[in-house]
Amino acid sequence: MIVTIAQIAAALNARAEGELDLAVAGASEPALARVDQLALAMDPKYAEGLGRGEAQAAVLWDGADWRAMGLKAAIFVQRPRLAMAGLSRVFDPGPEIAPGIHPTAIIDPSAQIGADAAIGPFVVIGRGVTLGARARLAAQVTVAEGAEIGDDALILQGARIGHRVRIGDRFICHQNAVIGADGFSFVTPEKSGVEEIRATLGSREEVRAQSWTRIHSLGHVVIGDDVEVGALATIDRGTVRATSVGNGTKIDNLVHVGHNVQIGRDCLLCGQVGIAGSARIGDRVVLGGQCGVSDNIFVGDDVIAGGATKIFTNAPAGRVLLGSPAVKMETHVEAQKNIRRLPRLFAQVAELRETVTKLLQTGAGTGQTDRGTEE
Amino acid sequence: MIVTIAQIAAALNARAEGELDLAVAGASEPALARVDQLALAMDPKYAEGLGRGEAQAAVLWDGADWRAMGLKAAIFVQRPRLAMAGLSRVFDPGPEIAPGIHPTAIIDPSAQIGADAAIGPFVVIGRGVTLGARARLAAQVTVAEGAEIGDDALILQGARIGHRVRIGDRFICHQNAVIGADGFSFVTPEKSGVEEIRATLGSREEVRAQSWTRIHSLGHVVIGDDVEVGALATIDRGTVRATSVGNGTKIDNLVHVGHNVQIGRDCLLCGQVGIAGSARIGDRVVLGGQCGVSDNIFVGDDVIAGGATKIFTNAPAGRVLLGSPAVKMETHVEAQKNIRRLPRLFAQVAELRETVTKLLQTGAGTGQTDRGTEE
Amino acid sequence: MIVTIAQIAAALNARAEGELDLAVAGASEPALARVDQLALAMDPKYAEGLGRGEAQAAVLWDGADWRAMGLKAAIFVQRPRLAMAGLSRVFDPGPEIAPGIHPTAIIDPSAQIGADAAIGPFVVIGRGVTLGARARLAAQVTVAEGAEIGDDALILQGARIGHRVRIGDRFICHQNAVIGADGFSFVTPEKSGVEEIRATLGSREEVRAQSWTRIHSLGHVVIGDDVEVGALATIDRGTVRATSVGNGTKIDNLVHVGHNVQIGRDCLLCGQVGIAGSARIGDRVVLGGQCGVSDNIFVGDDVIAGGATKIFTNAPAGRVLLGSPAVKMETHVEAQKNIRRLPRLFAQVAELRETVTKLLQTGAGTGQTDRGTEE
Repeated sequence: MIVTIAQIAAALNARAEGELDLAVAGASEPALARVDQLALAMDPKYAEGLGRGEAQAAVLWDGADWRAMGLKAAIFVQRPRLAMAGLSRVFDPGPEIAPGIHPTAIIDPSAQIGADAAIGPFVVIGRGVTLGARARLAAQVTVAEGAEIGDDALILQGARIGHRVRIGDRFICHQNAVIGADGFSFVTPEKSGVEEIRATLGSREEVRAQSWTRIHSLGHVVIGDDVEVGALATIDRGTVRATSVGNGTKIDNLVHVGHNVQIGRDCLLCGQVGIAGSARIGDRVVLGGQCGVSDNIFVGDDVIAGGATKIFTNAPAGRVLLGSPAVKMETHVEAQKNIRRLPRLFAQVAELRETVTKLLQTGAGTGQTDRGTEE
Repeated sequence: MIVTIAQIAAALNARAEGELDLAVAGASEPALARVDQLALAMDPKYAEGLGRGEAQAAVLWDGADWRAMGLKAAIFVQRPRLAMAGLSRVFDPGPEIAPGIHPTAIIDPSAQIGADAAIGPFVVIGRGVTLGARARLAAQVTVAEGAEIGDDALILQGARIGHRVRIGDRFICHQNAVIGADGFSFVTPEKSGVEEIRATLGSREEVRAQSWTRIHSLGHVVIGDDVEVGALATIDRGTVRATSVGNGTKIDNLVHVGHNVQIGRDCLLCGQVGIAGSARIGDRVVLGGQCGVSDNIFVGDDVIAGGATKIFTNAPAGRVLLGSPAVKMETHVEAQKNIRRLPRLFAQVAELRETVTKLLQTGAGTGQTDRGTEE
Repeated sequence: MIVTIAQIAAALNARAEGELDLAVAGASEPALARVDQLALAMDPKYAEGLGRGEAQAAVLWDGADWRAMGLKAAIFVQRPRLAMAGLSRVFDPGPEIAPGIHPTAIIDPSAQIGADAAIGPFVVIGRGVTLGARARLAAQVTVAEGAEIGDDALILQGARIGHRVRIGDRFICHQNAVIGADGFSFVTPEKSGVEEIRATLGSREEVRAQSWTRIHSLGHVVIGDDVEVGALATIDRGTVRATSVGNGTKIDNLVHVGHNVQIGRDCLLCGQVGIAGSARIGDRVVLGGQCGVSDNIFVGDDVIAGGATKIFTNAPAGRVLLGSPAVKMETHVEAQKNIRRLPRLFAQVAELRETVTKLLQTGAGTGQTDRGTEE
């Protein structure tokens, strides 16, 4: 992974100055950079660190005086985080999965494995599975019968792909994630307490014994192109139709996507988000860490919810949400401010009550007396 | 999985009309149904979809005119979700796990495997394990030493059953779940800050360094009959006695059940619920997604908690809870309404203060003066 | 695991009386104890249970009259939970992992395995891995290329250690945990809606389409000595620098630690805690179950947060937090009390408004008229 400044600049579509054929073997924070590393100093606040590290080249903010910093070369970027995406792609060696199929992998003869696959030890691939070209499956991954996965998949250790799941191209799935477990769907022979309180908003006529009968999951999971699923995340299969995740959506660690859920394109679901069964999520929705979405509701396109927001009711497109229950961000901020101001309000009302009581007893008392006689 | 209308009706204990020997090969939403599929149209709102799909037979709401819909046969049901349970059971082919013991599975010679087992690749079964009849274990499941599992178990890919765990009949365990990890239990040599604030409700005399000594988990986990555990869920072992889960309880994905917890019968714990150590949960309790239960508290029979409810104190039987901290559902709804009404209240109090101030300065001022002289 | 009363007392550094060479084969709750078990009755509330069980020896509270309880021997302890730590260590047989390297384990020839290792079936160890002395790895663990793990590691079934992760001595990692998955870090070519609302606190000029470009994780994870990680917990690798966890910190099941996070020494992170990217957590911080910490903030030393606390802003050292958003514990308790008192406040204000209105209409009305003319 040794590259020249010129190559990096080309990959970033960025301008470079100085010794363009200087080679670097990695990237680092400025203060920790070794002599063969590219320092990442895309903000003036990192300038000081450059002096402490050993880097001879750096990625700098626009207009930085690289010569004065003692560097031999510099690359200039406009949008640091976007540059990071390009830089990190250049320097990421990726996980080591040996080319070919490891002799311990067990692949059903009916499975179709695309060209240039890299399949690790103890992988198990079921009947009728289709894997696209250049699939990389790390150790101990399982892909159950009938699953179809597109080109360029990267599936890491211990991830579980369930039967008949359909996944697009460039899928990335992290360790121990589970795609296509059965949905959590049970029914009582009689109307259950949950059904009753949903209808009555909280009151119950009588509590009675009930046991749960399982509704099996006949549906599958359909995942678009360019989707990434984090470690230990789950996407359950649908009851009759499929649970679906649109193109470009990214799902973080420990996220739970329930059965029948429909998620649009280019969404971000951050760590530990939970989406209950049959909820629908629009396009470009961003849910911060630990957000929750109730079952059967709709979250419109471009909704953004801050961390730990709990969405119990439909959310219109474009809304920015916060709190539990979720409200518009400014409403939440105002409500919190109001709650903080309550002690003063209680004091003001107590004082008012005292003052008015005294008013009634004294000068205003006359009026009270008058009023009394009128009644 | 080809069955006749008559067979399905018998399985559902439902009435059928038309060509009872018509065979179907699956079920589908009405609009997506192929000619060999049974359309699921158990509510009049699905009638329109029937016209767009190709189904020749359907499950319909009571009283529907199937002939007018162009169908050849129909099955009539009273309680659609209950019918779904029966239908989905009929049509679910279940996961493919080849009969017998896969040659790569490693089973300790002292383990007892019941009749008609299906044990997949790379499964590892420890010393002294007992598995009941008809056990199905998918690839890469591990069952540690001394565990006992009843008849008809279905344990899916990568699930981990810990040592000496005892599980009843008809257990279903989804992918990568962990039953019987050690509890999270640590102690400091001196009283810890946590113990101190629990005693003082928040204040601490002094903060001091402390490191944690491990309390090992000597207890195990006891799980009843007909229990289902979701993907990536955890049930920790007890410290001395066992953590326990009663018959018929269903646990969803990513749920955490701490050490020493006692859970009753026929409960539902939805996705990402967390139950802290030594809490006791009664029978038929339903906890919505992302609920939390504090350690050492008691949640009574038939309690129902909405999504994201955090239960910090004992909850009496039959209570319907919502919010964080959990309160009665109607109290929570009222509190939220009150918070929304605060801006108006602030305005009213401000106006009152102004009015009263003016009252004091004017007509009522006389009274104030009088009062002043009296003091 | 048969030990004498004298041996146990020595292990606990505690005083014993009676037949010190009496042997016991385990520990139990008093009421359930068999004749060969040591009853754990460290509080007078357990005295009654001793009569129902069969134990001949017990661990008792200081000053208990063991002879009157019919026991043959007793051990006296001052701090019961600390005694439990010692007792449970004595009696825990630990997981059974056969000594040596199981023939099915696949270990890269370049890996260095320390003395006295116990490595189970189907374990996969990558290129250049270093494992210290006495490592115990249960079935199906994977350790990716370049990872370094210190002495006395215990890594349980299905845990995933990522490439180049560095871990200290005495590491304990529970089933299916994932250390060193890639961080969740994406960027849009143009400024995203999330960046915009962070800058404007909630308002957006216009909503536009955006898709996410991946920022790869070049950093690794550095974990100190004496760290324990729960089942199904995740610690993501850093973007450029390492995600780090200090000595003595304990992490419970299903916890999510995001990329670049820095966690200090001797912290406790309870079940389902989530820490977003680049947050910094001080030393001895205790986060109760389901707590959340926002990205890029700082939580000071010795902070203690109750269950389900959501920390959105920096928290000073020593603070005790509760609620969402997190506030000082006493502020939260006060706010909840104030919210419960709101119905009375609304009633008081309504009554005041009525009274003042009447005051204005009657005796005080004169004043109002006067005031009117003055303006």
